[in-house]
Amino acid sequence: MLLIKVGGGKHIRWDYIAQDLVEIVKKQDVMLVHGANATRDEVAEQLGYKTKIITSPSGIESVYTDQKAIDIFLMSYAGLVNKNIVALLQKNELNAVGLTGIDGRLWEARQKKQLYIKDGNKEKMITGSLTGKVEKVNPKIVKILIENKFIPVICPPAISFEKEVVNTDNDWAVAMMIGELKIKYAISLFEAPGMLKDVNDEKSIVKEIKSTNLDEYLSYAKGRMKKKVLGVQKAFELGLEKMYWADGRVESPITKALNQEGTVIF
Amino acid sequence: MLLIKVGGGKHIRWDYIAQDLVEIVKKQDVMLVHGANATRDEVAEQLGYKTKIITSPSGIESVYTDQKAIDIFLMSYAGLVNKNIVALLQKNELNAVGLTGIDGRLWEARQKKQLYIKDGNKEKMITGSLTGKVEKVNPKIVKILIENKFIPVICPPAISFEKEVVNTDNDWAVAMMIGELKIKYAISLFEAPGMLKDVNDEKSIVKEIKSTNLDEYLSYAKGRMKKKVLGVQKAFELGLEKMYWADGRVESPITKALNQEGTVIF
Repeated sequence: MLLIKVGGGKHIRWDYIAQDLVEIVKKQDVMLVHGANATRDEVAEQLGYKTKIITSPSGIESVYTDQKAIDIFLMSYAGLVNKNIVALLQKNELNAVGLTGIDGRLWEARQKKQLYIKDGNKEKMITGSLTGKVEKVNPKIVKILIENKFIPVICPPAISFEKEVVNTDNDWAVAMMIGELKIKYAISLFEAPGMLKDVNDEKSIVKEIKSTNLDEYLSYAKGRMKKKVLGVQKAFELGLEKMYWADGRVESPITKALNQEGTVIF
Repeated sequence: MLLIKVGGGKHIRWDYIAQDLVEIVKKQDVMLVHGANATRDEVAEQLGYKTKIITSPSGIESVYTDQKAIDIFLMSYAGLVNKNIVALLQKNELNAVGLTGIDGRLWEARQKKQLYIKDGNKEKMITGSLTGKVEKVNPKIVKILIENKFIPVICPPAISFEKEVVNTDNDWAVAMMIGELKIKYAISLFEAPGMLKDVNDEKSIVKEIKSTNLDEYLSYAKGRMKKKVLGVQKAFELGLEKMYWADGRVESPITKALNQEGTVIF
C-alpha cells in the first residue's frame, strides 16, 4: 500500500494529482492524507478570526487552537477541502471516501492539557489548547475501505482519548498510521521540489537522505519543515523503508516522486 | 435496519439522541441521516451571506444554491455538524463514521439545470442553481460500514451525475435509500411532537396517518413539512412499512417515537 500525504498549500494542484492517480491505483492500493492550511487561513480571515501561531521552546511553530479555531478547522478541513477533493477524485472515476481522524476513532490523540510556549525570550505555560498528539490508530475503518476498493481521503482533526475534537500534527499522525498499517513506501507532496539546501533556491534539492542522518536536518529545517522531519523520523522508527518528498505543484507529481525527482529518504 | 433521520433545527437534542441510541443499537443496526440548517444559517450570517429562499410554482420552499452557498453548505453540514455529531456519538461509545452523499457516490443526483420559481404572482425560470434530486443510491459504502459494526452518520450534499457537488432534498434522499436498502422502519425526529393539525398547538398531534391518505396532508402541510410528506410518500412507494414522526427535543426520543408518542404513518 502506498500512502500519499499532500500539503494544504494554495498552489497544490489536485487536478494533476487526480490524473496521476488514475494509473497509480491500477497497480496498488492508495490512501491519501491531506492538509488544508491555506483554506483554513482564508476561512478564518473571512470570519474575522486571526489564526494564533505559537512557538514551542525548541522553535517549532503550530496553531493555538481554541473552540472557535476547532470550528474553523472542521469547516475548512472536514468540510470544504476534504469533500471537494473527494468530488474531484470521483470526477476522475476514483471512488474516494473522505474521513477525519474522528470517524471510527481513526486517530486517537492525547490532549495536551498544558503547553509551553516561547513568549519573546521567556517561556510561558498556557492551557486550554484543543490540540493533541496521535498515540493510537484504529485502522479498521481504513482497512475495510481499501478491501472494498475505496480510496480513503483522510484529514485532521483527531479525537482525544476523552473524545474531544482536537487539532493534531498531520505528519506525526501519518507516521503512526505507517506503523499501524505496516506501510513501507510513502510520498509527501508539498510546495517545493523536495528538501532544499537553500530555501530560496529551488534547484538546491537534497537528492538523498539517509534516515539515520535525519537528525542533522532538524537543526537545519525551519518551522513546518521541522515537523516533517520529526514525522518522517518517527515513521522510519515504525518500519517505513522509503519516503519520497516531492513537488505537489507539477504534472504527474506522484510518478515524478517515485522516479526520484525530489528527495528520497531511505 | 432502522433508519433515523434527524432535522437540523437549533433545539434538536443530540445528547438525548445519543443516550437513547446506546440501548437501541444493541438490538438492531442503525443508520442516521441529519440536517444542519440552523448551523448553516448561522455560518452564512457570520460570513455575511444571505441564504436565498426560493418558492416553486406549487409552493415548495427551498434554498437557492450558488457556489458560495455550496461552500457554506460543506462547511456547516459536512464539517461542523457532521463531525461534532460523530464525536458526540463516540463519547457515548457509539462507533460512528460520518459521510456525505459525495463519499463513495452514496447519493447520485440529477442536477436541476433550470428551475421555475414563483416571483410574486409570476413564474420565472432561473439557471445555475447547484441543486439536484437523488435518483441513484450506491449503497456499498453504507453496507460495509454496517457489516463492520460502524454507525453511518450521513448528510447532504449529494454528487451529480456530472460529479458536481449539489444541494439536495434530504427527505427525498432518505426515501431513495429506504428503497435501495429495503428498509422497513424509519423514524424522523424534528422540532415538533409529530404532524400537527394546528401548527400553533403542540397538542393537536395526528396520531396515525395511512400512507394512502398522505395526499390530503399535502395541501394541508406548509413549507418544509410539504417536502417531508412528499419524501415519505416516495418511501412508502419504495417499500417502507412504517414511519414514525416524533419530537427530537425530548429525552429518549427514539424510544418514544417507537412507542408511538408522535405520528405513525403506516
